Amino acid sequence: MRWPDQVEVREVGPRDGLQNEEPVPVAARVRLIDALSATGLRRIEAASFVRPDAIPAMAGAEEVMARIARRPGVAYRALVPNARGAERALAARADELELVVSASETHNRANVRRGVADSVIAARDVVTLAHGEGVPVEAIVSTAFGCPYEGDVAPERVAQLAGLLLDAGADALSFGDTTGMATPRRVHDLLDALERAGIAPGRVALHFHDTRGTALANVVAALERGVTRFDASVGGLGGCPYAPGASGNAVTEDLVHMLHDMGVGTGIDLEALIGCARLAGEIVGRDLPSAMLHAGPRTRRHEAGA
Amino acid sequence: MRWPDQVEVREVGPRDGLQNEEPVPVAARVRLIDALSATGLRRIEAASFVRPDAIPAMAGAEEVMARIARRPGVAYRALVPNARGAERALAARADELELVVSASETHNRANVRRGVADSVIAARDVVTLAHGEGVPVEAIVSTAFGCPYEGDVAPERVAQLAGLLLDAGADALSFGDTTGMATPRRVHDLLDALERAGIAPGRVALHFHDTRGTALANVVAALERGVTRFDASVGGLGGCPYAPGASGNAVTEDLVHMLHDMGVGTGIDLEALIGCARLAGEIVGRDLPSAMLHAGPRTRRHEAGA
Repeated sequence: MRWPDQVEVREVGPRDGLQNEEPVPVAARVRLIDALSATGLRRIEAASFVRPDAIPAMAGAEEVMARIARRPGVAYRALVPNARGAERALAARADELELVVSASETHNRANVRRGVADSVIAARDVVTLAHGEGVPVEAIVSTAFGCPYEGDVAPERVAQLAGLLLDAGADALSFGDTTGMATPRRVHDLLDALERAGIAPGRVALHFHDTRGTALANVVAALERGVTRFDASVGGLGGCPYAPGASGNAVTEDLVHMLHDMGVGTGIDLEALIGCARLAGEIVGRDLPSAMLHAGPRTRRHEAGA
Repeated sequence: MRWPDQVEVREVGPRDGLQNEEPVPVAARVRLIDALSATGLRRIEAASFVRPDAIPAMAGAEEVMARIARRPGVAYRALVPNARGAERALAARADELELVVSASETHNRANVRRGVADSVIAARDVVTLAHGEGVPVEAIVSTAFGCPYEGDVAPERVAQLAGLLLDAGADALSFGDTTGMATPRRVHDLLDALERAGIAPGRVALHFHDTRGTALANVVAALERGVTRFDASVGGLGGCPYAPGASGNAVTEDLVHMLHDMGVGTGIDLEALIGCARLAGEIVGRDLPSAMLHAGPRTRRHEAGA
């Protein structure tokens, strides 16, 4: 076997995607989440408990969490910036919390106005609160394949930070290619460094951006190393904040399409997912970068002479 | 070593790209070819000697070949549909000829109005003419990873056709993913079938389309098998005839960017190539799907707080 038989694709569009789009109403966000929960996806990033004045697109997180139709077997995840956010997310009955720390000092300060060390300390508070309610926490290491301000980030530094976050009590780890700087070589280099630090590929999730066209190539490299958890955004919601017109998050339906043709199961209904991508495009009112929306699956037939 | 140290990236934009765009003047095509020839590219598909009434965008092939500034070490290649086209291309001093035969009977008939067997017979005439002038011929097997009319194409059928084209005297083989139906699994399956037929990965060139987002993933799969020749189109010129808004050819500068970061040399100056992509966009007057044009290379730095 070249690749795992089965992987988990995790949907981030309603949070990581919509956060980088013009704000849309709570009702539309709920509609999208409910549609996604009917596709076979098992984990959906549904809300971010940041301050609404900081990120208006994520305002109304409590309302989103209250109004979604919770489907058994689906985990509705929430991003939290700190203990206050964790309290709100737990009160809103988030199934899992996520916290982000950047591997790059400059990026972390630009993102949350504090240093990496302080973010690790704050992570411990989030974990304590979450575990008190029996809720698991995933730590996301962002700029794990490079920083738009600092450039290359040493894989050893990323692995070291991952270790600190596990020490802080994180139950799971994810690594984000925040601005699409990963290539297959960088994927192998990071997985090598993580293995040297005692963190096996089977324990990590990877979050690629297609900013430079490499998202699916990076997934294939990671599959060959035994990684089985990948994030993606329906329709490619999110764009790229640094480059107008450029792609951002990996596109969920394009990823699922490729995986299925490779014989890698996801448990997701591709046609239903493409329906969600169409809905996502309607909600944000722009043409999304999804190949499935434009060209359809490879099984689509054309008439000769058409 | 996971990947070859060095590969050849071959440029198809001036022919395969522009053929699928609104016609542009000969002078613009010459300007693009001359700019490309200064980047380190060693093979450029410069013209197609089809009937101008059949493909208006390729009219003036003789004029293009007469006006380009031929750079030593660069092979200017021409696509020819038949013996008549080969005579014209040879008279215009093409360095190498290319001929296309589809692995799918329906696609071949839709494309050139004859069956696959007749195309193989015609290939022999092209080879005889070219070899008489000491000019090599590459046979391109199109729909090698699937046909938009027939669906999946058996790798054994593709390998069998490749063998017939070698028997007909072709000096080189290339396999085209005409409508973007390849995934890494299909790449492995075809390379397996070719190997069983005695055709090693080192002897083939691959031509991927990014219609379903998999072009670079397919390249990585092929690199791992020892393929060292890849076609791509500057700026992503060409679009997709079946899907408005969808991508067509793999994007040369995105491919080169990824390869270089993987430690795979191409001999190409990426910055000069991105300049050519900008020129290509000006020539066709539309926003091209190039990630390098939108986001720039991963070495590009941003200001924190910008």
